[in-house]
Amino acid sequence: MSNPFFKNHGPFFISDILKSLDLKINDLNQNQKVSDIKDLFGSVDTDITFFHSKKYKDLAKKTKASFCITTKHLARELPNNCLPLVVDNVLVSTSKITSMFYPSSIHDNFDITTKNILDTKFKESVEFGQNVLIGEKVLIGENCKIGHNTIIEKNVSIGNNCSIGSNTILRNTLIKNNVRILDNCVIGKHGFGFFPLENNNLRYPHIGIVIIEDQCEIGCSATIDRGSMSNTIIGKNTYLDNQIHIAHNVKIGENSIIAGQVGIAGSSVIGKNVKIGGQAGISGHLKIGNNVEIGGGSGVIRDIPDNTKVMGYPAKNIREFLRENKWSIKQL
Amino acid sequence: MSNPFFKNHGPFFISDILKSLDLKINDLNQNQKVSDIKDLFGSVDTDITFFHSKKYKDLAKKTKASFCITTKHLARELPNNCLPLVVDNVLVSTSKITSMFYPSSIHDNFDITTKNILDTKFKESVEFGQNVLIGEKVLIGENCKIGHNTIIEKNVSIGNNCSIGSNTILRNTLIKNNVRILDNCVIGKHGFGFFPLENNNLRYPHIGIVIIEDQCEIGCSATIDRGSMSNTIIGKNTYLDNQIHIAHNVKIGENSIIAGQVGIAGSSVIGKNVKIGGQAGISGHLKIGNNVEIGGGSGVIRDIPDNTKVMGYPAKNIREFLRENKWSIKQL
Amino acid sequence: MSNPFFKNHGPFFISDILKSLDLKINDLNQNQKVSDIKDLFGSVDTDITFFHSKKYKDLAKKTKASFCITTKHLARELPNNCLPLVVDNVLVSTSKITSMFYPSSIHDNFDITTKNILDTKFKESVEFGQNVLIGEKVLIGENCKIGHNTIIEKNVSIGNNCSIGSNTILRNTLIKNNVRILDNCVIGKHGFGFFPLENNNLRYPHIGIVIIEDQCEIGCSATIDRGSMSNTIIGKNTYLDNQIHIAHNVKIGENSIIAGQVGIAGSSVIGKNVKIGGQAGISGHLKIGNNVEIGGGSGVIRDIPDNTKVMGYPAKNIREFLRENKWSIKQL
Repeated sequence: MSNPFFKNHGPFFISDILKSLDLKINDLNQNQKVSDIKDLFGSVDTDITFFHSKKYKDLAKKTKASFCITTKHLARELPNNCLPLVVDNVLVSTSKITSMFYPSSIHDNFDITTKNILDTKFKESVEFGQNVLIGEKVLIGENCKIGHNTIIEKNVSIGNNCSIGSNTILRNTLIKNNVRILDNCVIGKHGFGFFPLENNNLRYPHIGIVIIEDQCEIGCSATIDRGSMSNTIIGKNTYLDNQIHIAHNVKIGENSIIAGQVGIAGSSVIGKNVKIGGQAGISGHLKIGNNVEIGGGSGVIRDIPDNTKVMGYPAKNIREFLRENKWSIKQL
Repeated sequence: MSNPFFKNHGPFFISDILKSLDLKINDLNQNQKVSDIKDLFGSVDTDITFFHSKKYKDLAKKTKASFCITTKHLARELPNNCLPLVVDNVLVSTSKITSMFYPSSIHDNFDITTKNILDTKFKESVEFGQNVLIGEKVLIGENCKIGHNTIIEKNVSIGNNCSIGSNTILRNTLIKNNVRILDNCVIGKHGFGFFPLENNNLRYPHIGIVIIEDQCEIGCSATIDRGSMSNTIIGKNTYLDNQIHIAHNVKIGENSIIAGQVGIAGSSVIGKNVKIGGQAGISGHLKIGNNVEIGGGSGVIRDIPDNTKVMGYPAKNIREFLRENKWSIKQL
Repeated sequence: MSNPFFKNHGPFFISDILKSLDLKINDLNQNQKVSDIKDLFGSVDTDITFFHSKKYKDLAKKTKASFCITTKHLARELPNNCLPLVVDNVLVSTSKITSMFYPSSIHDNFDITTKNILDTKFKESVEFGQNVLIGEKVLIGENCKIGHNTIIEKNVSIGNNCSIGSNTILRNTLIKNNVRILDNCVIGKHGFGFFPLENNNLRYPHIGIVIIEDQCEIGCSATIDRGSMSNTIIGKNTYLDNQIHIAHNVKIGENSIIAGQVGIAGSSVIGKNVKIGGQAGISGHLKIGNNVEIGGGSGVIRDIPDNTKVMGYPAKNIREFLRENKWSIKQL
């Protein structure tokens, strides 16, 4: 959770946190300070954490956090050093407290820190188009090109020998070397993650980033969302065609090839040397193995093991797909 | 048809209208003025209307319009106060006359009235990026943000506490309060409605608008087309992910959630509390009930009743979809 | 290959070409000049050509090129005037040499030749928005409109009575008369064509262009890629809705209608009077006949003859599609 992209507005008094959760706990030093919110494993004794599912029981037993947002039922698993803050909906409450610490990670308002590149040091080192905007603390390596009307928001880091197209927006993104990003992309906005609430959904803070490894090419009009707690990663030498949507937390391995209009839903992990045909869709939280080939138009709703070719909706082994459809294709 | 977005260029002499339709009617005051073109129900005695299908017979019998574009066969249904103008193709002729009244609604040329926001009164009240353009008669409420390179075209209205991203274009759109629209969107252009004619299609005027209700969020790279005669509406607290296309006249109810790359074709009506998975498509002129869930990648080609879960192409009840595909998914 | 869009950087000494291919041929005038790289049929005696598949044997026998990149096996088919340069992978080697001649066709870096339209002769003849950029040697006809932030890159040609929207990028494109291109499009970038190589894919030069014939309309957020060796062509009076992706070398006939979010993969040829429903996808290298109708959401993976209606994934005759699915649709 300590990244340069999202400023931690803590520490907060535990009394402020309790107030925000509509809780009262009397036998407690109300002026105790809480520095950060982290997961069960990463927390230290100045942190608050959260525990919402039995499957994290083993981690919960060992957490070093001093406070933990949890349910009445799960609270008994916590060690003595950790005071349970019992709530009805752990994730909604966690979202509230994370928003206290990282308010700028909730909504993607435009970056007010940008200046015209002509008013920055990059005027000398970058080849740039007209109306290029650069935010605070941006890093840009050697021999880079940035096209017209492109916006590089604060803290973004770009390696050497990169070419960024025109009308593109980079935000909360770390780009390695020899990367090409084409026109009209939006990379690094928050993902589509929130708690549905009648009349006013509650957005969950997204404090991950997007990492684009060496030699990648990203086609026009891509949207690649940043991660929520972890990062969204495009592996080395992976090429994306136009109009592709990569949701938050997705990880794509190296040397993969993804054709136009593909969509990959949140938190799916794609192996290396994977080929995905045009308009295919991959559901969230799946694991696609190495050397997998996914036919165009497929809808993948299950994990796919290494070295498999699939096609169809739902995607199945391509031999089976072709066998099932042979007759009807002949009818054309 | 009286909205601030499209100027009525009437009244016209009936002689000019007849000329445009290649018609001659002798026993008629050629200098009679026609103020507007409206549907059968909404017309008053200074208007012209149109009647192209038997199913509107009952409305036709009671129309107050003085003139009606119709066929020889349907003309007999009109009351005495309404003179039939008999043509071969009612919709093509109606399109021609509507274009006389509303010429600026046919093609979406860029707005020449825009000025840099620095030269408008919003310089004081709005937090804005660089190169923001604002058209004539735009309204913007309190506490709004507008990102870099964004274009708010003439007559657009934005409520309070709204955040508009960068590189976005708003046109013929009415945005309520607490709405967030992200980057690279185009909202309010005309829909994909026209009469196919050899060598030169005839565009139908689109004089509806887009209305985005309170608390909505619209993801990056959305296209939401304005209505033709009615409006396109996104209901309260409905969230759209990236790369979504909403065609003209679509209405989406409140508290709905629509994932990335979904497309909804013209004139479909979506209920409230509806969830639509990524890349799903919904055909035109359908009615999707309340509390419906549509699986990712589905292709919906029939109405769906309330409280139904569907998936597949064509979309069917999700239990049936899963049963049919269980075996083959196991094969992976 | 002689087009104004891509500058030929030749001639080169044959010695430089051999060096680039890691070849040595001793009994040869190392200072012989090579002017251009062309296909087997188009080459003259100052050119180098390439021959990678038996199916071009008849063309190979008659080529006038002085040099030919080919395999050991195919080399015997070449005439005496043509010296074979024997390599392991003909297409990779051809790509390397084409890149020597046409280096600017490999990567789509932004156009550094653009100026604000206010500093060009078009200030007088074009109706334009703010921040419009125009590259070198651009041609624009009479009575044209160009929206805000739009970039017309070098050598692009636009006919009479055209309307280009805002935030659109035109590159390597030839636009005829009465064409309307809406907002946020990217037209003319290179296609998704490259040789996959571990750790560093090799991009193939794309030296074709995009041609958009009279009366076309291109919706918002389209991506239309230019051809590799041939051109990408949108036929007369063909209309495209929003968010459509047309890959390199695709040809679409006249009077066709393509709904939102459709994708057409590389080198497919679509007939005239074709209607394609929303979100349909067409695989690469297919031939779709005249008067074909493709239902929304279809995935077309085989050629389709004239006058056929298809739907489904994979697309089949629509009668069969409806028959197969009748029961399940009723279940909703």
